[in-house]
Amino acid sequence: MRMVDLIAKKRDGLILTKDEIDFMIDQYTNDHIPDYQMASMMMAIYFQGMTTEERIYLTEAMVASGDQIDLSAIEGIKVDKHSTGGVGDSTTLIIAPLVAAVGVPVAKMSGRGLGHTGGTLDKLEAIPGFNVELASSDFIKLVNKNKVAVIGQSGNLTPADQKLYALRDVTATVNAIPLIASSIMSKKIASGADAIVLDVKTGSGAFMKELDDAKALAEAMVEIGNGAGRETMAIISDMSQPLGFAVGNALEVKEAIATLKGEGPADLTELSLTLASQMVFLAKKAGSIEQAREKLLVAIKNGDAIAKLKQFIEAQGGDPTVVDQPDRLPQANVQVAVKASQTGYVSEIIADQIGIAASMLGAGRATKDAEIDLAVGIVLAKKVGDFVEHGDTLAVIHSNDQQNGTISEKIQAAFQIQIEEVKQKPLIYQMI
Amino acid sequence: MRMVDLIAKKRDGLILTKDEIDFMIDQYTNDHIPDYQMASMMMAIYFQGMTTEERIYLTEAMVASGDQIDLSAIEGIKVDKHSTGGVGDSTTLIIAPLVAAVGVPVAKMSGRGLGHTGGTLDKLEAIPGFNVELASSDFIKLVNKNKVAVIGQSGNLTPADQKLYALRDVTATVNAIPLIASSIMSKKIASGADAIVLDVKTGSGAFMKELDDAKALAEAMVEIGNGAGRETMAIISDMSQPLGFAVGNALEVKEAIATLKGEGPADLTELSLTLASQMVFLAKKAGSIEQAREKLLVAIKNGDAIAKLKQFIEAQGGDPTVVDQPDRLPQANVQVAVKASQTGYVSEIIADQIGIAASMLGAGRATKDAEIDLAVGIVLAKKVGDFVEHGDTLAVIHSNDQQNGTISEKIQAAFQIQIEEVKQKPLIYQMI
Repeated sequence: MRMVDLIAKKRDGLILTKDEIDFMIDQYTNDHIPDYQMASMMMAIYFQGMTTEERIYLTEAMVASGDQIDLSAIEGIKVDKHSTGGVGDSTTLIIAPLVAAVGVPVAKMSGRGLGHTGGTLDKLEAIPGFNVELASSDFIKLVNKNKVAVIGQSGNLTPADQKLYALRDVTATVNAIPLIASSIMSKKIASGADAIVLDVKTGSGAFMKELDDAKALAEAMVEIGNGAGRETMAIISDMSQPLGFAVGNALEVKEAIATLKGEGPADLTELSLTLASQMVFLAKKAGSIEQAREKLLVAIKNGDAIAKLKQFIEAQGGDPTVVDQPDRLPQANVQVAVKASQTGYVSEIIADQIGIAASMLGAGRATKDAEIDLAVGIVLAKKVGDFVEHGDTLAVIHSNDQQNGTISEKIQAAFQIQIEEVKQKPLIYQMI
Repeated sequence: MRMVDLIAKKRDGLILTKDEIDFMIDQYTNDHIPDYQMASMMMAIYFQGMTTEERIYLTEAMVASGDQIDLSAIEGIKVDKHSTGGVGDSTTLIIAPLVAAVGVPVAKMSGRGLGHTGGTLDKLEAIPGFNVELASSDFIKLVNKNKVAVIGQSGNLTPADQKLYALRDVTATVNAIPLIASSIMSKKIASGADAIVLDVKTGSGAFMKELDDAKALAEAMVEIGNGAGRETMAIISDMSQPLGFAVGNALEVKEAIATLKGEGPADLTELSLTLASQMVFLAKKAGSIEQAREKLLVAIKNGDAIAKLKQFIEAQGGDPTVVDQPDRLPQANVQVAVKASQTGYVSEIIADQIGIAASMLGAGRATKDAEIDLAVGIVLAKKVGDFVEHGDTLAVIHSNDQQNGTISEKIQAAFQIQIEEVKQKPLIYQMI
């Protein structure tokens, strides 16, 4: 088998076989196929696409390229959740204890990653004492005991995907649905989940700016998941403004705590409930999505959810008193209000810009080894649809630095204000 | 400027500017743009194409990447000829002395290349004593004196094209009209010609199997040539059978001599006259193509053409007596007739297969340093349209080896014979 013939085949719109895809990924992972041939193949796939079968084969080949986590020692159906990424998205912090409270095992492996704010691991570490470096056996014991534990990703998961992603990044082949879908799904499958719930974001703050693209990606991932034997569901949710009010690590933990008490922002609560309902349904802890939602609402109301959060924090060495006294979380020195410079209705809060502002405050890391300031961030005071008067507070900057002029302007500019009343966009466009 | 942005631009169907193309080719030639980015770009071009302007810029950038031959010391308009390659094509051997005989300067730089038979240099070296290694100054003197000289290609012409071609070969991006056209034209332009005549082959033995593709390539090259300030014409000619009867180096020289005497095969004579007429016209040695053809026919009839061949051979150290006694050319030891195994009309002689058979005899080289046997080859006895009876000779193998069973079968298989009479295809489909 020669790679040049496989490139020509894909270039001409023909369908690659399982053997051909296995060959290509295996040889590429082992450096026997050079980057230039794979770059040409990626561009051919960009134009010719891949059938559902090809996408499943590609995903499975990438899973097979490295380690695969074995969660079989955990009782019950393990359901994982993945979001394509947005600003102010603390749903994992909410969902993990919430679904555990109704009996769904959550064995979450999380990354730190690069981004406007830290990843789930960073956010958890905002809780004093919280330890994400558990031995694999302790992790499994904890999940069996409490139904929830979160640790840092370890092992050599999907090296083929890592290599391919780096190549796609510099060859303008990132934006191809089959490649994005197989990249995400290979990581989820290698992480050992039995079932997967996906949150595909759309809007100005999302990777998929257009609803149609988000829909195509969601459908592609659901097909791959189901094709690879993992029951998969997806929602498409709005990212034309940050989720909730808080953007920043400790700030988001605080908001997550409020949400688990039933006192969280409406959008964050709704999104968390929707995703958690799918997880509970896929874990067969409810007969329908509606029944799952009912159970979750009960767990929030009767205090099971917040109790589970305390148990989760304590089990991993964290200080559970933060749940009742959130002010024990890291706090920034300075709070500066960002004021509206005009009167009108907020039509959009460009999430990317808010994220960049948070990152400039120190809430995210630009390079792998950069330090994060867990205390800093932004708390929105207004959301899309709200009426503001000139001089009203739009958001509050939480900072450990006095120099916030540029950041203030950035946040102001992220708020799009118009005279006409604003028609709200739906939070959740579709369930797939 | 970042290459990844240029790839994305082309991928999205936008048009690259001259600056962008210059940057890309210059940086790639100097190893500052890696192969994987260029491979991705080539595939994007495969799908999105290039405008005429982009093709001209690409060609000019490749010309600028290396040495350019300066032929300005030669008087008159220097017209070069290029063929996309076929089997049994000895037109250069015929055309060079033929157009020189009517006053057109021919300063030909030729390669050896890889192929079924040798290149023009190899064919000329079948003439005892012929020397293609002239100093540049002697070369120019000879052309000014005799109007014709042929030497081996020297200097570092179009290194960008060399590097790109090697990359395209292994990334399935050879078959893209803009890339083929700019590759050919960059070499012709760097070789210093004022005007260019192109012979684009189509049919089973050609690179462009389909007439439409051949036409598109011819048009692309003519546009590039004219756009780069070199008057360019093209013809599209048939390659559904070898040209003439002879396939092999010395055998083709013999046939070329016969053609210059007016005794050559009809197709080879016609193709040579057509291309030579365009060259004479572009060199402004005739007011029209028809008038040019008239002049050339006179030169053949009155012996000027054959006299010019003798002068050309003698001037480069060769033995001019081969012209009157062609048997002084290298001869193979063994001649074996290939017989028809059925009765009917020859509908096609798969040129590729005849070429491969000749190559197996030793007439071509598979690697750069392989030795060529200048004596061996194949002489067809029948051409498309001919009626053959079972047992008739289809072709004669000229070999220096007794073991020709496989080759004989290969040649037999190349002859397609049918019961119905065969409608002849045109030799020349179109002039552009």
